[in-house]
Amino acid sequence: MTLIVQKYGGTSVGSVERIEAVADRVAKHHNAGEQLVVVVSAMSGETNRLLGLATSILDDPTPRELDIMMSTGEQVSMALLTMALHKRGVGAVSLNGSQVRILTDDSHTKARIKDIDSRRISSELESRHVVVVAGFQGVDEAGNVTTLGRGGSDTTAVALAAALKADECQIYTDVDGVYTTDPRVVDGAKRLEKITFEEMLEMASMGSKVLQLRSVEFAGKYNVPLRVLSSFDDGPGTLITMDEDNEMEAPQIAGIAFNRDEAKLTVVGVPDTPGMAYEILGPIGEANIEVDVILQNTGDCGKTDFTFTVARNDLAAAEKIVAAQTERLGAVEWSSDSHIAKVSVVGVGMRSHAGVAATMFRSLADVGVNILMISTSEIKISVIIYEKFLELAVRALHSGFGLDDEED
Amino acid sequence: MTLIVQKYGGTSVGSVERIEAVADRVAKHHNAGEQLVVVVSAMSGETNRLLGLATSILDDPTPRELDIMMSTGEQVSMALLTMALHKRGVGAVSLNGSQVRILTDDSHTKARIKDIDSRRISSELESRHVVVVAGFQGVDEAGNVTTLGRGGSDTTAVALAAALKADECQIYTDVDGVYTTDPRVVDGAKRLEKITFEEMLEMASMGSKVLQLRSVEFAGKYNVPLRVLSSFDDGPGTLITMDEDNEMEAPQIAGIAFNRDEAKLTVVGVPDTPGMAYEILGPIGEANIEVDVILQNTGDCGKTDFTFTVARNDLAAAEKIVAAQTERLGAVEWSSDSHIAKVSVVGVGMRSHAGVAATMFRSLADVGVNILMISTSEIKISVIIYEKFLELAVRALHSGFGLDDEED
Repeated sequence: MTLIVQKYGGTSVGSVERIEAVADRVAKHHNAGEQLVVVVSAMSGETNRLLGLATSILDDPTPRELDIMMSTGEQVSMALLTMALHKRGVGAVSLNGSQVRILTDDSHTKARIKDIDSRRISSELESRHVVVVAGFQGVDEAGNVTTLGRGGSDTTAVALAAALKADECQIYTDVDGVYTTDPRVVDGAKRLEKITFEEMLEMASMGSKVLQLRSVEFAGKYNVPLRVLSSFDDGPGTLITMDEDNEMEAPQIAGIAFNRDEAKLTVVGVPDTPGMAYEILGPIGEANIEVDVILQNTGDCGKTDFTFTVARNDLAAAEKIVAAQTERLGAVEWSSDSHIAKVSVVGVGMRSHAGVAATMFRSLADVGVNILMISTSEIKISVIIYEKFLELAVRALHSGFGLDDEED
Repeated sequence: MTLIVQKYGGTSVGSVERIEAVADRVAKHHNAGEQLVVVVSAMSGETNRLLGLATSILDDPTPRELDIMMSTGEQVSMALLTMALHKRGVGAVSLNGSQVRILTDDSHTKARIKDIDSRRISSELESRHVVVVAGFQGVDEAGNVTTLGRGGSDTTAVALAAALKADECQIYTDVDGVYTTDPRVVDGAKRLEKITFEEMLEMASMGSKVLQLRSVEFAGKYNVPLRVLSSFDDGPGTLITMDEDNEMEAPQIAGIAFNRDEAKLTVVGVPDTPGMAYEILGPIGEANIEVDVILQNTGDCGKTDFTFTVARNDLAAAEKIVAAQTERLGAVEWSSDSHIAKVSVVGVGMRSHAGVAATMFRSLADVGVNILMISTSEIKISVIIYEKFLELAVRALHSGFGLDDEED
């Protein structure tokens, strides 16, 4: 019998009407003979309402108390969905994180799942019940309620799918799948039938916020087939799997990802001595600022220009450190620029296809986009460009790699 | 060390400001060296909000799902109060019904407490923590969340006080104690310093809705000293205890209770045969209608008039039964009257004082109030009168038994 884990996010259960619609969909799957575990988030708005109450008392609410409070949001939506299933004559039972026993560590507000006891769920499934599970939450060894952090419901769904050895984990959201790039930027963006975990990770880390990075990692680690679908329309969505090259003509490139959340810092005229990079980036790391692309131009007179990028909201903190280190290292000057963006072509196909970089640079050159920095990984090439060229660059690459929807 | 269980109802924790005020009070008690367990209800309005969501899906929501949903209200307020205590530097920890382990039967929405595991609470108290407990909820043997029914937070508080052998259980509410009668009816109504459990039960069952009947029964059974106080003002409130006559000059009468929620049915000219009362009241009981006062006038020609009272909202159902039985028994006719009310004088003192009935009837006669029916118990005399005389009767009795506040 097919066992499916479905997950519905906050907007999918954002009102009684939406919950009824989810119940219709779940009932259809149930009546088709599938075994179903349904993970729900809190109704949209509820998490912020609760957080507002907590922060109106304490700026920095006690994590343990915050967790047990926040966990109520999912508990309400799981009960409502279960009632809506009963209304449709579908046998169903709700279980919260503590009732399933989703055992986590004790890192409140960002707990990690350690173990899932699948016995209760399995016995309910054997009785032909739909099991509705509260996402986002677990319980530690001492019985304290924990939460997995925002977006944790995706992680709950994937972890349950792994524990139950489900045939598929379906993440219902407000988009109908993963696209070759953001359809708001490129009209001809196409929904992907399939994408690999690795590609999805690169796309997600680049701002394609369809899925939480962590749930994709988790699904990849346990080889859980993951499908992203719309809870508003029917449609096959996008399947995220391990296999990369089983099909003929696997595409070179899965998609074009981009990210505006970039800022660049440059230290000019640094004495080119060993350990220089560490002198600059060490304090940056200590300040918990993540560095993305790094570029070092060694000049001809024993001096180097050192450039790196950080997230835009870390820029001010990074500037302070760079200013101090510029002086300490005896560099000439420093500068920063927050009007930059990153564009990446992502695809496992580039492992076996030469010429991806060439196609990329030619496509950008053809439309006059200047490349400031380049960074590569096994399945991705990223370039830093001026932000004003972002849309132009994405469209040129989407077309240059033949991703445009032929129907458009 | 003094161990106090405090309970704060929905209006007492109805807003962040109110929760802060409760935290101030709890902190004061804590800093005075008391060990404290604080039981909270859901913020006022929350229970109705949740119920509204549930009934918009199912007219008759599944009890198990309703319970886990409703239990979230108390979970939110317990976490908020705990945060507010942390803000004041008071060590505090919250526990829901499942975490304490308040074990109940599996009668969802009206569960009964079977056992309380006091170990976790005791260990927190030993660490000088205030323990904040979610009222109204428990967990059954199978781990399902249950609720004790509306007003169940009072029961939680009393049950915890009994399990922990607390020195006192303090119920904070929006009135400052139990009064000799409703101050809205009698200006000179006085707050009672003390009242016995039995008296409180009679007062509560008569519509003095200061405390839930069930929690008073529970407190009496386990001999938990219960105190009703205002969460809005300071003041000693009213202590409800076992001892009735330790003090000199124990008053004859504790108070005057009354109830407008009464209706009267009369079957006229019933053949006076054995089993006749059962023929009328049997079907009434089977319809789950509670009968209060019963009066039978045996006439002189083998015929009887049979009168009884029921709650007003049961009148329509009772009328149907009475009409059918009137015909079946060959009685002359039947009638009903919903413009009646019940007034009672309550006091353990009447056990040892003669003349209470005489004083009562004289007081009513003095102001011209006609008595329709009379019912007595060991510590109570009730009369049924026309509703239009209710205020007049209550004032006459309050004054007749010397209960008026001398300061007024």
